[in-house]
Amino acid sequence: MAKTDKDTAKAKLKKWKRRARAAEAQLEALATPAPATPKKKVVIVSPLAPKDGFPLLAPVAGVEFATAQAGVRYQGRTDVMMARLAPGSVIAGTFTRSATRSAAVLDCQAKLGAGPADSAAAILVNSGNSNAFTGARGWESVNALSAAVAQRLDIPASRVFTSSTGVIGEPLPHERIEAALDGLVSGLDAGGIAMAARAIMTTDTFPKGAMAEVTIDGQTARIVGIAKGSGMIAPDMATMLVYLFTDVAISQKALQSIVSRLTERSFNAITVDSDTSTSDTLLVAATGKGPALTNMRSAEAKAFERAMGDVMLNLAHQVIRDGEGATKFVGITVTGAANDADAKRCALSIANSPLVKTALAGEDPNWGRIVMAVGKSGAAADRDRLSITFGALAVATNGLVDPGYKEAEGAAYMKNSDLEIGVDLGLGKGHATVWTCDLTHRYIDINADYRS
Amino acid sequence: MAKTDKDTAKAKLKKWKRRARAAEAQLEALATPAPATPKKKVVIVSPLAPKDGFPLLAPVAGVEFATAQAGVRYQGRTDVMMARLAPGSVIAGTFTRSATRSAAVLDCQAKLGAGPADSAAAILVNSGNSNAFTGARGWESVNALSAAVAQRLDIPASRVFTSSTGVIGEPLPHERIEAALDGLVSGLDAGGIAMAARAIMTTDTFPKGAMAEVTIDGQTARIVGIAKGSGMIAPDMATMLVYLFTDVAISQKALQSIVSRLTERSFNAITVDSDTSTSDTLLVAATGKGPALTNMRSAEAKAFERAMGDVMLNLAHQVIRDGEGATKFVGITVTGAANDADAKRCALSIANSPLVKTALAGEDPNWGRIVMAVGKSGAAADRDRLSITFGALAVATNGLVDPGYKEAEGAAYMKNSDLEIGVDLGLGKGHATVWTCDLTHRYIDINADYRS
Repeated sequence: MAKTDKDTAKAKLKKWKRRARAAEAQLEALATPAPATPKKKVVIVSPLAPKDGFPLLAPVAGVEFATAQAGVRYQGRTDVMMARLAPGSVIAGTFTRSATRSAAVLDCQAKLGAGPADSAAAILVNSGNSNAFTGARGWESVNALSAAVAQRLDIPASRVFTSSTGVIGEPLPHERIEAALDGLVSGLDAGGIAMAARAIMTTDTFPKGAMAEVTIDGQTARIVGIAKGSGMIAPDMATMLVYLFTDVAISQKALQSIVSRLTERSFNAITVDSDTSTSDTLLVAATGKGPALTNMRSAEAKAFERAMGDVMLNLAHQVIRDGEGATKFVGITVTGAANDADAKRCALSIANSPLVKTALAGEDPNWGRIVMAVGKSGAAADRDRLSITFGALAVATNGLVDPGYKEAEGAAYMKNSDLEIGVDLGLGKGHATVWTCDLTHRYIDINADYRS
Repeated sequence: MAKTDKDTAKAKLKKWKRRARAAEAQLEALATPAPATPKKKVVIVSPLAPKDGFPLLAPVAGVEFATAQAGVRYQGRTDVMMARLAPGSVIAGTFTRSATRSAAVLDCQAKLGAGPADSAAAILVNSGNSNAFTGARGWESVNALSAAVAQRLDIPASRVFTSSTGVIGEPLPHERIEAALDGLVSGLDAGGIAMAARAIMTTDTFPKGAMAEVTIDGQTARIVGIAKGSGMIAPDMATMLVYLFTDVAISQKALQSIVSRLTERSFNAITVDSDTSTSDTLLVAATGKGPALTNMRSAEAKAFERAMGDVMLNLAHQVIRDGEGATKFVGITVTGAANDADAKRCALSIANSPLVKTALAGEDPNWGRIVMAVGKSGAAADRDRLSITFGALAVATNGLVDPGYKEAEGAAYMKNSDLEIGVDLGLGKGHATVWTCDLTHRYIDINADYRS
């Protein structure tokens, strides 16, 4: 055999060895499981979150905030916020109507307008534990925290308002919050509202804030608000909490009247899943450091109410935009109802219908389900006068599919992330708008997980 | 080079070639996508379906059934059923309370007890199209079908009861059903009830039937029933239809009174998702061919009502067991309410709560959500008197977690497919039981699919 032959044979062998080893190495790589990537808790922000993030909220004269990590339930994040309100602040509020509402809610309701208004006041909120359905222990925690805050701030306990949000049925370890009070008091700062919005989150996917200004007698009055709610990851954290601050000087009665009226059209006009928390609380404090509102029939008072309404509706919409698993933000306007109450009943029936909400999730322009939801609502309705619109599209008119309606146009409309459904009952002048989100697989993922 | 060397070299080369080719062949196989298996429509039967399948239903004297493939919407299956009822049959019924109910429902309501009872009567049901929200066209279809059946059976149109179940908002192609009428009339058979139960299914995953017998004056009276409902695969097919047949001789008024009373405790005590169909119909026909019930206060009348109640409750439970995506059959009993209406309101609030239903799906003994649902129900409740049981487990007692409750026992109980939740409000003697199922991913799959 010649040298070249031998070389060729060797080269051939080398080539095949290389091919065999390369292929075998690839096979082995394929057979070896990928190294486990360390599990990381992914915080998913709602796809409907405001694109610009948390807004810049200017300070309100007479209001300071502080936050702390008390370790009520969460680790590595703030879970308590305190707001101190200047002497003379008046406080109004609206609350859950649940028959099983928590001790903190009952306590706030009792204290509204009760305490000496010339003293300073405080709001103390913890996340992680709602102190609901905890019997006498619940009251002990509320009273202990009220007394401890009162002592630190040298104010009457009747001027301390507390809220708790988180799991139901577990005693609140209020001593952990008490231990954080000194730090909170020393940290009070007029610019702390953004931190406060974060501390009250449970499983919200973004903090929620809004602001408006209005001119009264040539002076600028300011209204700022923060809210939490609806982004439930662990169960039992549906609680909605809202805190509004303004510098106007106004009577408690007038403030309460405004906030009660506006709640109906904002926080009582939104629904994620028809379930009502045992802890829902909205508190509004007016510090009196800004312009005064004395005549509630004045143009200024009306402008103030409109501005307050804007802030509340903005926050309410943010709660829906953080709805569990939401991929659609849906406004439902009912007109032509026998009266406003019927219109709202009908709108909420549509907004709460699982069949409507799953159709929205599937981007299915399934107007038959809207007919169904109108029919079951209990509102006066006449099948043959009912009309339905999707945005500007006439879908059904006078009880029949609209002659100009094309299913493809309805389907294209449903691809939008913000949707407007219109229903006209053709009976009277009653009207109402409510807001909701769709019902998706993620809602089930979030809520069917075993608590851990 | 010796021959053996050469042989060895050749053998080596051969070996490496073989290894290389084998490994490369494996790699290629891994890289080639598996051949697509042809898509097959899998009919999934509810995991909660009765284990013994459709029950053996004995004939009822004076009732005959026939079914046909009219091709209203479905192909390759029956979609129309006719029942002929002997002269003298009395007919009672209960219906959806929807304000947008269909023409067929309104027509049945008008005809109850109206027509000449000495004539024969008929029930005609189609699946695939509900003829709801179809305006004047809807009435045309109902009238055309009533007239056509009346003519074929030589009875007044006022004795023809029709139902339609299926998509909403599309005109019913009633001429297809008319074309099937001659075949239906010639196929009428006393033994056809099982076929009838299948023909009225839309996307139910199993046909539903039940039977009871009761002795009256030494004679056996029989009650049989069929139902469809809740197994929605295509949207808008939630309609529940129920047909009951008995051979007793009874007045229309007495029969209506019994069925109205029993509906409250059976079909009006079940909920899959709180949504109410535009077409729900329950009809009961008594042919008078069996024993007579004249004194409605007699022990026999009470036994008959009990037997009728058993059949209705059995069918109602089957509807829940075929609930969309259901994996849990859940009875919810509320006791200690201020009155029965409050008890039912409270039980339905729990049964309809998405947060309760998702917890059940996740086998999470999340009793906090039950507290929430009690609180929002509107029923009189006192947080500190509220007690909750899961089966025999005391979970919460007098407004607090029960001292003997162990979370692990609650979690183990939740693994059962049939669950009993008990709530005592501690206020009065009002009580009610309702039945529901859990809310699973499959519910979303079923209902978020675009109609096709």
